[in-house]
Amino acid sequence: MAKVFAWLQSSRAVTTERHSPKAGIKFMKCRKCGEKAAINMRQHKLALCRDHFLKWIPDQTQRFIEKYQMFKPEERILVAVSGGKDSLGLWDVLVRLGFEADGLYIGLGIDGGSGYSAESQRLSEEFASQRDLLLHIEDVEAEEGATILQAATLTQRGKGKTCSVCGLTKRHIMNRVARDGQYDVLVTGHNLDDEVAVLFGNTLNWATGYLARQGPVLPASPGFVRKAKPFCRFYERETAAYALLRGIEYIYDECPHVVGAKSIYHKELLNELEADRPGAKLSFYLSFLRAKESGFFEAPVAEAHTELTACETCGQPTSAPGQCAFCRTWEKVRSRHAANA
Amino acid sequence: MAKVFAWLQSSRAVTTERHSPKAGIKFMKCRKCGEKAAINMRQHKLALCRDHFLKWIPDQTQRFIEKYQMFKPEERILVAVSGGKDSLGLWDVLVRLGFEADGLYIGLGIDGGSGYSAESQRLSEEFASQRDLLLHIEDVEAEEGATILQAATLTQRGKGKTCSVCGLTKRHIMNRVARDGQYDVLVTGHNLDDEVAVLFGNTLNWATGYLARQGPVLPASPGFVRKAKPFCRFYERETAAYALLRGIEYIYDECPHVVGAKSIYHKELLNELEADRPGAKLSFYLSFLRAKESGFFEAPVAEAHTELTACETCGQPTSAPGQCAFCRTWEKVRSRHAANA
Repeated sequence: MAKVFAWLQSSRAVTTERHSPKAGIKFMKCRKCGEKAAINMRQHKLALCRDHFLKWIPDQTQRFIEKYQMFKPEERILVAVSGGKDSLGLWDVLVRLGFEADGLYIGLGIDGGSGYSAESQRLSEEFASQRDLLLHIEDVEAEEGATILQAATLTQRGKGKTCSVCGLTKRHIMNRVARDGQYDVLVTGHNLDDEVAVLFGNTLNWATGYLARQGPVLPASPGFVRKAKPFCRFYERETAAYALLRGIEYIYDECPHVVGAKSIYHKELLNELEADRPGAKLSFYLSFLRAKESGFFEAPVAEAHTELTACETCGQPTSAPGQCAFCRTWEKVRSRHAANA
Repeated sequence: MAKVFAWLQSSRAVTTERHSPKAGIKFMKCRKCGEKAAINMRQHKLALCRDHFLKWIPDQTQRFIEKYQMFKPEERILVAVSGGKDSLGLWDVLVRLGFEADGLYIGLGIDGGSGYSAESQRLSEEFASQRDLLLHIEDVEAEEGATILQAATLTQRGKGKTCSVCGLTKRHIMNRVARDGQYDVLVTGHNLDDEVAVLFGNTLNWATGYLARQGPVLPASPGFVRKAKPFCRFYERETAAYALLRGIEYIYDECPHVVGAKSIYHKELLNELEADRPGAKLSFYLSFLRAKESGFFEAPVAEAHTELTACETCGQPTSAPGQCAFCRTWEKVRSRHAANA
């Protein structure tokens, strides 16, 4: 914890002498009130004290929600929570802003030697009960008959990489719960570092379909609920600071399976870029959004006209004939799991 | 020289034991003839001996010329040469392929403590005279009254950065000489590393205008001659190998002013990526070209309809009213230079 605070306060701070040329005292001042700053956001040329930072985050979030037309005050929101700083911080902010937001926790059955899923579920439940919020809980193993890790081992999907099955499963369940609960929008806690890593990956191989779709909001389409990412313009460092300064208890560890993932590799490369040019990530993301808004990207025709049909098992829309990828994958998992038992 | 050869042969070679499991001898074999390979191109999974590599480069160049419709056999080509491995190697290849290609050397008056321009001019002239080729020579100081370095110091353009004035000047002179000489196409020696660094820079800030224009060929437009980059798919390591193995004498040093340039910084980052995933640069570039070809990029309307008029001084087309950027810049340079004298 002390380590995290040090990171927030010191990291590449435009320190000190410049602000108090006479004294040798080293601290930065809050731009709003002149008190000692709790965080220095070099990329925004903005230092803030605890209180002003805790106001700045919801203010900015509100601005992003309106700017990207994510949702309206009267709409019902489902927040996908993982027990981490981003999703719990986001839920906290949405509630503070007066939105009607319920939570959804998906138990993936990941242990990783530290009871990862159990601990993140405990923290999510604690967060909800302390604030008297509604949290939907879905359990993959109970509902589908196997954990994510077992599923990854039992299918060829993603060549046994856990992240592929996990992503497919989460997307499916999130959409189902949002539709069943008649929520207007599903929101996730993706931060700028997440978004930029995905954008970078999609740019490296010019994945036009993904590029055309990436953004703060993915509009609803038949069978798919609208998705929004209200934290997409906050650096990870900012969402971490928010959770810490708000006293939100969250799980510090990353998912144990993320080690070696391409997105982590891209994040490291982008961190180098950012260290050298503060604001580089934000500028990459915002200029991408501007290019998109200017009509620069045309989704290739074939992509735009993909016909979707209802999955014959679950009814969710799919571009595959017959079953959707989720049902196909889990059916295979269950039959192989049974054969092994 | 020995160092460069070691780089070509050893660098990240998929060596040895795999190819000669019994013996401890460590060498790779040419894919075509089984002789000892002179270069191992891990990104293409291709190792070649000297002779087959010296055939492979022109064969591939011919393929790229046709694939991207750069120019036809009967067209007259002007090759911009700098005395470096890429441009002299390209000129050599074009002549070997039977094209009618003259050269253009632009003396920029760069010294950098090593007589950089003088040496590169000497090597370009030697290359041309040994092969009985026509080389146009333009001298910036003689024609415009100041060197590039003086111009950079005397103008605000690019905040005194030499590369900005240099680029502007070279582009202007190349187009003028190509038009005056009634060449069908102007070709430059840009290699894949160059192209990818530019693409990366343009992607980081989503410079839509530049992205829409970048490619192996820039078609002619009123007042502008067609431009092509036949080496755009060769890694720098491959063009260096070609020049070395062909015995072309070229200037090893980079321009002394390039130090600290953003493109160099991007190249280093991209080298990391390539080291980790051989072929990443090529895949980045080729997927970009495919996305473009699929109609993914739409040049923003404003960009596409920029009106060009003839510069009132030189007559070359310009989007600025009155004088073009070249004439405006150099007029300023001359008047300030005179005032300082």
